[in-house]
Amino acid sequence: MSASEIDFSLVEDTLRAAGEAAARLTLPLFRTPLAIDNKLHAGFDPVTEADKGAETAIRAVIAEAFPDHAIIGEEWGATGESRFSWIIDPVDGTRAFISGAPVWGTLIGFAVDGVAVAGLMSQPFIGEEFLAVPGRSTYRRGDQHIANRTSGETDLTAARVFTTTPNLFKGEHWNKWQAIETITRLQRFGMDCYGYALLAAGQADLVIEPYLNTYDIAALVPIIREAGGAIACWDGSEPSGGGNVIAAATPELLEQALDVVNRA
Amino acid sequence: MSASEIDFSLVEDTLRAAGEAAARLTLPLFRTPLAIDNKLHAGFDPVTEADKGAETAIRAVIAEAFPDHAIIGEEWGATGESRFSWIIDPVDGTRAFISGAPVWGTLIGFAVDGVAVAGLMSQPFIGEEFLAVPGRSTYRRGDQHIANRTSGETDLTAARVFTTTPNLFKGEHWNKWQAIETITRLQRFGMDCYGYALLAAGQADLVIEPYLNTYDIAALVPIIREAGGAIACWDGSEPSGGGNVIAAATPELLEQALDVVNRA
Repeated sequence: MSASEIDFSLVEDTLRAAGEAAARLTLPLFRTPLAIDNKLHAGFDPVTEADKGAETAIRAVIAEAFPDHAIIGEEWGATGESRFSWIIDPVDGTRAFISGAPVWGTLIGFAVDGVAVAGLMSQPFIGEEFLAVPGRSTYRRGDQHIANRTSGETDLTAARVFTTTPNLFKGEHWNKWQAIETITRLQRFGMDCYGYALLAAGQADLVIEPYLNTYDIAALVPIIREAGGAIACWDGSEPSGGGNVIAAATPELLEQALDVVNRA
Repeated sequence: MSASEIDFSLVEDTLRAAGEAAARLTLPLFRTPLAIDNKLHAGFDPVTEADKGAETAIRAVIAEAFPDHAIIGEEWGATGESRFSWIIDPVDGTRAFISGAPVWGTLIGFAVDGVAVAGLMSQPFIGEEFLAVPGRSTYRRGDQHIANRTSGETDLTAARVFTTTPNLFKGEHWNKWQAIETITRLQRFGMDCYGYALLAAGQADLVIEPYLNTYDIAALVPIIREAGGAIACWDGSEPSGGGNVIAAATPELLEQALDVVNRA
């Protein structure tokens, strides 16, 4: 099977159905007391029942539609081997989730040969969906359907920049964050995946984060690119597999931001 | 007129009507390109058309119900003289507002002799309302009505702490933030007024911020207190008038946090 043989209307239906299946497991647990695991020995990395149950539900929906495709999930790891892979973070922003903040999302990406070409970011508490397939990035909330379109910003000094927390930037990365913080117009923290979605919607101009896993970013790559944005690792390479990532409203802005980060 | 002569059902109706009037002006401007003033010479403090129009609308609703009361607003200053005052921030979290993040809110507090005893935090994009009158703090979203109740957390090392941005803490305040960050379990940034509302709803345990104005905090004081929480300035004084503020899920937690902040 070649990439051109993929039925992207089935991909879109699968993304949406998987997102809805996840929401049935995440929403009843949002803003309730949760049993929280401490996944890492050092630090605080909450993994909720919502996370685990939702990934299982998403995997079931994908496996029914595309039984031969590979799946990579935050909770249950990698399964299958294929040029076609689905990349899942059932609850991106678990800290937001366990603190009641509605800026977490369910991320599901679809990649061909390691490059994400379709994806979903769903925020079911607000009822928002950001979805991309080749040629289209859209926002849906209830009856509202809007094409995502980045801001078109090309000037780094005018840029609004998002990152989840400045604490992400350790060691040499701290200087890079400082350089971006100093040159840009406005900084906001605490957004998780929601920041990338807002960039696609034209409300932020730049998102910068280090140490991303593929499941943190793959779904968002096509949502940004199909909205006119640009996204890359700090060394300019393809970000669908994760790494240190910058997303920007325009290719020009991405180039300026990469330049600042690589000089710092 | 004494405080006991205040008709708090009329206060509640006025808070809600004023919030709805504000929403009619804020929502159409949310997630659209905005004309942005630069209110301060140094730094970036956006003031939107939404802000100005909404405060005017809120003032009109209050003046109709309580023509003799004083009003203090972020945009249009203080008007009237009375033991009874209404304290307005039409869009708390203007940075959130102009970057499309649904964690801004419309704040309206009602104070007697400088102590806020009723208040509203409205997030109209999500459709959420946090409202307190003496004896009651409630959450409403659509058909959902829930009594706000703080988490009951009494252990600072287990606390989830929110603040808008660590950049708020300058000079000696930086050490105070660091002391709180080090001892608590989880930190989140970027919440503005939404963090205090989530504390009232039991989803955060501590919020700490310096340099608040009365309109940043007055509305939230009764929402927190009537939900079982405690809130004070760092020197232990009443916070309705603004200042450096800590809000906590319980009086015990507040005492521990004040102790840490004042030793740092």
